Amino acid sequence: MSSTSTASNPSAAAGGNSKPALAGIRIVDLTQFEAGTSCTETLAWLGADVIKVEPPKRGEQGRGATTDKPGSDSPYFLLLNANKRSVTCNLKSQGGRELLEKLITRADVFIENFAPGAIERLGFDYERVRAINPCVIYAQIKGFPPEGRFKNFLAFDPIAQAAGGALSITGEEGGRPLKPGPNIGDTGAGLHCAIGILAALHQRHATNEGQRVEVTMQDAVINFGRIAYAAQYMFDAPAPRCGNQSIIAGTSPSEVYPCKGGGPNDYCYVYTTRASNAHWHRLLEVIGRNDLLDDPRFIDAKSRAANFRSVDEIISAWTIQHDKYTVMQVLGEAGIPASATFDTVELSKDPELRERGTFVTVDHPVRGEFVLPGSMIKLSASHVPVKPAPELGADNHEVYGGLLGLSRNEIERLQEMGEI
Amino acid sequence: MSSTSTASNPSAAAGGNSKPALAGIRIVDLTQFEAGTSCTETLAWLGADVIKVEPPKRGEQGRGATTDKPGSDSPYFLLLNANKRSVTCNLKSQGGRELLEKLITRADVFIENFAPGAIERLGFDYERVRAINPCVIYAQIKGFPPEGRFKNFLAFDPIAQAAGGALSITGEEGGRPLKPGPNIGDTGAGLHCAIGILAALHQRHATNEGQRVEVTMQDAVINFGRIAYAAQYMFDAPAPRCGNQSIIAGTSPSEVYPCKGGGPNDYCYVYTTRASNAHWHRLLEVIGRNDLLDDPRFIDAKSRAANFRSVDEIISAWTIQHDKYTVMQVLGEAGIPASATFDTVELSKDPELRERGTFVTVDHPVRGEFVLPGSMIKLSASHVPVKPAPELGADNHEVYGGLLGLSRNEIERLQEMGEI
Repeated sequence: MSSTSTASNPSAAAGGNSKPALAGIRIVDLTQFEAGTSCTETLAWLGADVIKVEPPKRGEQGRGATTDKPGSDSPYFLLLNANKRSVTCNLKSQGGRELLEKLITRADVFIENFAPGAIERLGFDYERVRAINPCVIYAQIKGFPPEGRFKNFLAFDPIAQAAGGALSITGEEGGRPLKPGPNIGDTGAGLHCAIGILAALHQRHATNEGQRVEVTMQDAVINFGRIAYAAQYMFDAPAPRCGNQSIIAGTSPSEVYPCKGGGPNDYCYVYTTRASNAHWHRLLEVIGRNDLLDDPRFIDAKSRAANFRSVDEIISAWTIQHDKYTVMQVLGEAGIPASATFDTVELSKDPELRERGTFVTVDHPVRGEFVLPGSMIKLSASHVPVKPAPELGADNHEVYGGLLGLSRNEIERLQEMGEI
Repeated sequence: MSSTSTASNPSAAAGGNSKPALAGIRIVDLTQFEAGTSCTETLAWLGADVIKVEPPKRGEQGRGATTDKPGSDSPYFLLLNANKRSVTCNLKSQGGRELLEKLITRADVFIENFAPGAIERLGFDYERVRAINPCVIYAQIKGFPPEGRFKNFLAFDPIAQAAGGALSITGEEGGRPLKPGPNIGDTGAGLHCAIGILAALHQRHATNEGQRVEVTMQDAVINFGRIAYAAQYMFDAPAPRCGNQSIIAGTSPSEVYPCKGGGPNDYCYVYTTRASNAHWHRLLEVIGRNDLLDDPRFIDAKSRAANFRSVDEIISAWTIQHDKYTVMQVLGEAGIPASATFDTVELSKDPELRERGTFVTVDHPVRGEFVLPGSMIKLSASHVPVKPAPELGADNHEVYGGLLGLSRNEIERLQEMGEI
């Protein structure tokens, strides 16, 4: 049995006993890896009933991703498939395809992110699914535009990040292109698709009809780099890589500063606005350098940007004396934008983020206790406790029996035939 | 007069003359800079009527961001405020506050991302807005958890990226933390908030009541780094920085390779899966190195990861002979995941991305032709032509007169009093 999250949620109280936001919405989920699964996990956390349809035996490919515990579902999979149900279904068999058709008749949303052309070869392209159920919202995530020259190209997160320009604007000035660590090609595309699906659900209240939602990973990455196109207007050239600086215009400080400890993440980011001297003056006060208030090298944002090396030296001389938590606390309380460069262990163990539900602990039937980032969207009237990702086929009886009305004998026969 | 986008949209045809997805949804938009404005721009592109409420004279702060054309609205602003309407309203005046109250009575959504405490000081906290109109969805984006120790701290995109762990996983192995170029703290939070608003709109169909939506920039950044928590399980340590490598497990190739030209972005990212040798074998074929098929250094994913320097040497020797477009085309067609590291000029000039509406050209009343990334969410039954960001107060008469029913005299009086 699955246990639900132990984290409390500050939003829960206001919701009382009301149903979650997407109660009653059923999603037939053919997604794999991250771009698609992050979309449906987001919708599951808003209360949708997400039925993950997986090949018998091996399941969705993410289950077998690199793991610390061979033989059990990977952490990768557990991070992306919480609060879903799982059924097995062999889409290469006639019986399997018939089951999927039946599921579609009971669905509000159908979603897939297979390699280009795969869903069409399986016989479940948009026209076919719409013919089965015209109310279904049919959502697809691909790497590249389906009408363009890259339409058949495979995509993974780093490919999408290169294709969407993220690498061209990440890295040291003069250095090589670097991949941002966060997976904005994958989860970024998933969130765009979730928005499309929710908008289409809204529209369906008026039209009583489904429609097609389409997102590419390349487009999603471009959207996160929107401000780089302002830089392009400024420089009349491609937006550059500029280390930790703002991409539109140099300002200083706008940098990570080394703090006491010397570890790989013992740094604090400090930023002051270009719009005025307010943050800068507060900073000088805090670090005990009011002697620099009238220094012409730092008299306005433009001067500070020109003399950034001196600015960095002055700030570092102070930050290195304190640990990053202290630096953040002192600067933040003084009204100066600053943050320690938190690492994943620090974040996942932070008591406030646990209390908030940013990180939750679930009890997985095989692995036991598992900590994962929860839902980042807080609704006062919709609270869904986090449940662990399902084991493969865990919901075959509930879905095929309960929802589709198949008898226990029929389900067993399908199992024997290898169709589920 | 504003002209609409010149880009065609392949989704438009299927939509016929139907209304867009969010037709009839009115958003009272008090957002500024990027985290909030990216949210409401996304909703505007789905058909919502977004009324931007701005201080008289200077307008929202983003209008005055760094610009190539002093005296006109910044590219930064134009990129984030397309398809919105603008009214001026002095919220520090009694008359201004009364106007905002009236707008709230006609709104479906109220959204703000001021510094912590500001909206409460203006008198428009959640309880107050709910009292004015219980059907309103009240959305807020802040940097840090409003119940936590950083609740009063200021946040900008790089602060949120440091606070959410993005810097700790971006950069060279052994190097300092680096900020990802894309603004996942800002636009990332905006997209999470858009999902919350849409879910709340869906729930309102059932309850006929609004609710509160709350998103923090720190949480949003954590969500994009979800997979880093799988790495933490693998290594029992904070997820590391690892250059262009996958964060979960080393694989090779998983790198940018230098191409002919030698420019800062003359690189192609090449990736092969760890799950099998399929991509690797295709790659050897394409680069004419079938002699390495049985080489024990590259016999499986683990071996290739261990010998990544040799892998990089072999691939670079081939990529450097061709430009990045050719490298991408040849590898992509052969079924090997690859992408050139496109820069912002290449992307914004790409004819296919123009045709698709990933980039659109609008005719701004002051600036003239302006190219911006458009909507990345394609709906077959909802098409909204892109319109340029509004000039300050451009819709005062339409909104205060048309929507709220004020007479021309009343509007002029409010203007003279400095209330709008």
